[in-house]
Amino acid sequence: MRLLNHLLLFTAVLAAQAERFVRFTSTDGREYFGDAILPPGTTDASKSKAARVIEGDILGNFTVTKQVMPIRKLLSPLPNERVRTVRCVGFNYAAHDGEAGQPIPGWPILFFKPFTALNTPSDPIPISEGYQTQGNFTSTMDYETELVVIIKKKAFNITDDEALDHVLGYSVGHDVSHRGWQIDRGGEPTPQFSMGKGPDGWAPWGPAIVSTSVIPDPQTLNIWTKVNGVVKQNDTTANMIFGVKHLVSFFSMGTTLYPGDVIFTGTPAGVNLGKADPIWLVDGDVVEVGLENVGTCTNELVYVQDAR
Amino acid sequence: MRLLNHLLLFTAVLAAQAERFVRFTSTDGREYFGDAILPPGTTDASKSKAARVIEGDILGNFTVTKQVMPIRKLLSPLPNERVRTVRCVGFNYAAHDGEAGQPIPGWPILFFKPFTALNTPSDPIPISEGYQTQGNFTSTMDYETELVVIIKKKAFNITDDEALDHVLGYSVGHDVSHRGWQIDRGGEPTPQFSMGKGPDGWAPWGPAIVSTSVIPDPQTLNIWTKVNGVVKQNDTTANMIFGVKHLVSFFSMGTTLYPGDVIFTGTPAGVNLGKADPIWLVDGDVVEVGLENVGTCTNELVYVQDAR
Repeated sequence: MRLLNHLLLFTAVLAAQAERFVRFTSTDGREYFGDAILPPGTTDASKSKAARVIEGDILGNFTVTKQVMPIRKLLSPLPNERVRTVRCVGFNYAAHDGEAGQPIPGWPILFFKPFTALNTPSDPIPISEGYQTQGNFTSTMDYETELVVIIKKKAFNITDDEALDHVLGYSVGHDVSHRGWQIDRGGEPTPQFSMGKGPDGWAPWGPAIVSTSVIPDPQTLNIWTKVNGVVKQNDTTANMIFGVKHLVSFFSMGTTLYPGDVIFTGTPAGVNLGKADPIWLVDGDVVEVGLENVGTCTNELVYVQDAR
Repeated sequence: MRLLNHLLLFTAVLAAQAERFVRFTSTDGREYFGDAILPPGTTDASKSKAARVIEGDILGNFTVTKQVMPIRKLLSPLPNERVRTVRCVGFNYAAHDGEAGQPIPGWPILFFKPFTALNTPSDPIPISEGYQTQGNFTSTMDYETELVVIIKKKAFNITDDEALDHVLGYSVGHDVSHRGWQIDRGGEPTPQFSMGKGPDGWAPWGPAIVSTSVIPDPQTLNIWTKVNGVVKQNDTTANMIFGVKHLVSFFSMGTTLYPGDVIFTGTPAGVNLGKADPIWLVDGDVVEVGLENVGTCTNELVYVQDAR
């Protein structure tokens, strides 16, 4: 029994050695999980050219091997089918609430995206015809950069103090939003946000899941957005109204969070929503979402035609 | 090749013979999928005592065998892990919109429950402490009976006319709702409904998935609720603002619906929300939700204490 305990301890120590969980295709055409090797002078995992291969399940038992494989393309850190639930938080930065004309919420505002919205850190964001400008209906595509929390073990009715034990790490995500469908057509006076945020590919995330061992305090990170290279959002997660610990414990109230669930924790100020002179995203615009010590996702909006 | 085509045709014909898909534990303690055998004089699958065993995948290829097994307990028609996404529709009956003080929506109102909310047609609905009365915060538990649509094959940008080809059949579901968390604490002025509707077990459904061959037109069905035996809702799906065909095609706009996705299509008038003298559900109340030609789910609300 003592030997078993030692072995379990050893496994835990090995697991803790993974710092930046990535999923990628390599030059052999195969998919791997890995621990990204950062090039000198950057902590942006999207710049990694190689990773130590991880064997096993990053949501369970795994080993970081000594095998190093080149990264050809980074994928979303978990395949879509491993993410059971995508929770999102609304109005979680006071300055964003102000620009959107919303009061500071007394409790976290929860909505969902379907798992089909998840996208890689680099693939196009498809805008189907129903979200393009049609007659008097303007395509009001907007960006939202967010810190993303990845759950590693079940959580049910847990406290704030217990929350981080259930967290694998952090990514940066893009809560792609069509304001017209989100608000105007979402059902005044109580619009539900899901129709304006749920299409396939409208939630790029990655480029890595950076371990809680690398980021012990997620409320200290710079977060930014660039559209075609121009900075549009630039803030810090210190300004979140409800921090990661409370969001995880709050959402576990009577509700089981599963390994692989992700939480998009809300966006700072600087979006187009509420602006007198919005510059809505259009076909061909390239959006970079970034989070300090995590990295960037860079995705192009692409108009697509419906098959007929 | 001609033989293969004949075999495929034969399989399709066999599949069409399943009328009421159920999942159940039998007297041997094992779980089965089956085609429920109705007792004489009822179309309520919850009264079935036996079923013809189905082999294979009810969302893909399956066969209704001649083996009949007794039903000890009906489970939800699909296990939770087979349901990827639970879509719900708000304000989809005009009389309900009126009682709730909402305008008639111009487009379907979409929100989500997590898959962990799904429950069987007979198990308790657990109300954890955060949803019970605490100090000045009243537990405002309410019922909502809804027709549920079950998707059988992928749908993406489909038309209303194509929609039913993607539907396996219909169930009745209970969109259990805590109005305080749904609205007051959901974030005025734009409350998101998910926190008041998402806890574990807050979406009983079943007792069967009744095939589109049995119900060719889902807009003709009586729908009702009884609380402790007293009728509280009593309407017809003919009064849905957006019918099943349009909901399925609308939600497929730029978004892939998956086999096993379910859609709760909104509740008729008669809930407590908006009433001058609401009678909120409390510990021990038994709620029956019913749909013509489908059957009933009967679940008791049970207050539970958080583990400490």
